[in-house]
Amino acid sequence: MALINEHYLKLGANYLFADIAKRVNVYKATHTDARVISLGIGDVTQPLAPAVVEAMHRAVDDLGSSERFHGYGPEQGYLWLREAIVRNDFLPRGIHLDASEVFVNDGAKSDTGNIGELIRWDNSMAVTDPIYPVYVDSNVMNGRAGTCNEQGEWSNVVYLPCTEANGFVPQVPDRRVDMIYLCYPNNPTGTTISKDELRKWVNYALRNDAIIFYDAAYQAYIQDDDVPHSIYEIRGARKCAIELRSYSKTAGFTGVRCGYTVVPKELTASTMDGSRRVALNPMWNRRQCTKFNGTSYVSQRAAEATYSPDGRKQVAESIGYYMENARMMRQTLADAGLRVYGGENAPYLWVRTPDGKGSWQFFEELLYGAQVVCTPGVGFGPSGEGFVRFTAFGNRADCEEALDRIRKYI
Amino acid sequence: MALINEHYLKLGANYLFADIAKRVNVYKATHTDARVISLGIGDVTQPLAPAVVEAMHRAVDDLGSSERFHGYGPEQGYLWLREAIVRNDFLPRGIHLDASEVFVNDGAKSDTGNIGELIRWDNSMAVTDPIYPVYVDSNVMNGRAGTCNEQGEWSNVVYLPCTEANGFVPQVPDRRVDMIYLCYPNNPTGTTISKDELRKWVNYALRNDAIIFYDAAYQAYIQDDDVPHSIYEIRGARKCAIELRSYSKTAGFTGVRCGYTVVPKELTASTMDGSRRVALNPMWNRRQCTKFNGTSYVSQRAAEATYSPDGRKQVAESIGYYMENARMMRQTLADAGLRVYGGENAPYLWVRTPDGKGSWQFFEELLYGAQVVCTPGVGFGPSGEGFVRFTAFGNRADCEEALDRIRKYI
Repeated sequence: MALINEHYLKLGANYLFADIAKRVNVYKATHTDARVISLGIGDVTQPLAPAVVEAMHRAVDDLGSSERFHGYGPEQGYLWLREAIVRNDFLPRGIHLDASEVFVNDGAKSDTGNIGELIRWDNSMAVTDPIYPVYVDSNVMNGRAGTCNEQGEWSNVVYLPCTEANGFVPQVPDRRVDMIYLCYPNNPTGTTISKDELRKWVNYALRNDAIIFYDAAYQAYIQDDDVPHSIYEIRGARKCAIELRSYSKTAGFTGVRCGYTVVPKELTASTMDGSRRVALNPMWNRRQCTKFNGTSYVSQRAAEATYSPDGRKQVAESIGYYMENARMMRQTLADAGLRVYGGENAPYLWVRTPDGKGSWQFFEELLYGAQVVCTPGVGFGPSGEGFVRFTAFGNRADCEEALDRIRKYI
Repeated sequence: MALINEHYLKLGANYLFADIAKRVNVYKATHTDARVISLGIGDVTQPLAPAVVEAMHRAVDDLGSSERFHGYGPEQGYLWLREAIVRNDFLPRGIHLDASEVFVNDGAKSDTGNIGELIRWDNSMAVTDPIYPVYVDSNVMNGRAGTCNEQGEWSNVVYLPCTEANGFVPQVPDRRVDMIYLCYPNNPTGTTISKDELRKWVNYALRNDAIIFYDAAYQAYIQDDDVPHSIYEIRGARKCAIELRSYSKTAGFTGVRCGYTVVPKELTASTMDGSRRVALNPMWNRRQCTKFNGTSYVSQRAAEATYSPDGRKQVAESIGYYMENARMMRQTLADAGLRVYGGENAPYLWVRTPDGKGSWQFFEELLYGAQVVCTPGVGFGPSGEGFVRFTAFGNRADCEEALDRIRKYI
């Protein structure tokens, strides 16, 4: 008799953003005239860079040509893309990676969800709180997270609160954990981590033989020179950290689907009996060769084009556009009397709800009162209660109108 | 201390096709003048249909336009594609699916590898033997397969031999199993299953509360009218079967990456204590929403175009081209005195090695003696020993030359 994986039953029925979409749809169905503006889900709105569009057209023509047709590519991604990544995203920061340490994927979410497969299911984990739900949900599915209490906290997860009180700087755990998820610039708070703080984490991981899963999906939004773009800027990180990156937010690839994961060759973990250290790079390679067939050739050519001189310039312009949104949002919301964090090195603003309102309550008020969608902070974890997240990914005009409506509503 | 998932250590270091590629590279490095022709890996060679190329160009232009830009699509795939699938791939065969039962993916390999997550890790499984390695390898990774003996058989896997003796028709197991992988038209043997035989499996699954994972990636190659294209042609299959499909072989999408999985709403499995039946469709939906972010918009538009009048015609021509290769290969290899199976409703030929040679031995002989790459049958499972697989996906000229070389060599 087939039995289900009962860990799934512990999860809420809906993924956070599906839940929000449902509520927005209920509103729209009952208010058919309203024009709802979303500053909720972190989806880009600006078209792809012309250099990327051009590269994609060329790639499509390749696939339509007998001479230049491309079938299965390497599961790890084409070497020309992996070499461009090494050369452009890491070498200028003094980080030397080998192309075989880079695994191209169809966007960071897949690998973020799947990479935990390499580690024993009962290893303990820590997450900063609030946090991107995939880190926890994917570990609920394989049983690692344990059981959930009424506050939404999982028994086998160590939560590292990021609050106004600690300036959103999480403290290194006071006990041993085996796996740590970090995301900087942070989703959802939009805050960053300094090199000194990041060094504490690397040292903790080295000391405790833990692995850090470092989500750097938003690194392209960093404006300040002293904020690290990669965990490999910290000495020793190659021995303890996997880094996840994406073109989704860097170059507007949310519909194109391309990202990559770095698994350094020095990174090892132990067998249960402690008799053997095993390198994770060949394990991940085996996983990808077995359960993945590479990313679309067209998407890989698109990613490559972001590194061309024109591509770089155009991508930077698009990031500048969103960061101008963020600047405007910070100012307007602060002027309206709200407490605002983030938005300086990240496309996210983390905003305290007024009058101690709950996240979902303020979400509903903004939806029904201003026809603006935000993301309830508590959806990202217990410490997110009393906050909402706004994204800077809107069109300028939408963004301006949404701010105007929020100002009037508040 | 982070511990690895030790199930990975039970696997051979290389995925079968990576292993073959390595051996071919060794040959090429030591024989730099040789022109090696591959009839090994099942990768297509013909360019995409013009209607598909046109649709992809339009999709790329959409992504470059402010008005028609597409960011994140639904994790399940765009409704226009799922509706086209329901209408074109199932309705004409009398199968009524709802679009919410179809999950678009980046090619069948990902879902084939991941879908087992929904089922308890210790459920038992059966596979026909020989078989596509992903079915077993992905279950080794989560511990379900048990341990491996010297014949390459896993302790918790029931093997259902498909041999010359039984005409490659596997017998329904004589004991209870919880999960069954079936692939028809079959990879690697190129044989098909009749409706009567398939009905036995559906009835077995219903009787034993088992789930069938039905891989129909090659259904487009079926030429005979009475061979089933979908397991849902069998009454009751909606209650016990998940079907996996792909555009890779149907429309040459190995580099484009698009496929889909059908999880019917009636399909349920039990909780451990037997107190509750749980539908797998919302579970898979939750999985995809958490660990997948949808397939490239361009790839989905490409898939949609295969259903246009021009697209259908062009795709059929391309399949006809490969099936003419298969016909030619069947005849030449049989004329050369080899025993040949498959290749009539499938792009694969399953060929008995001469003089009782081992699969790898004959593979090496063909590589070194005729510079032709095939796939050693034993790589697909113990019952594949003494066979090799040829694919009909080559260019006509390459295919003809390869046959000529094989004839001369033998």
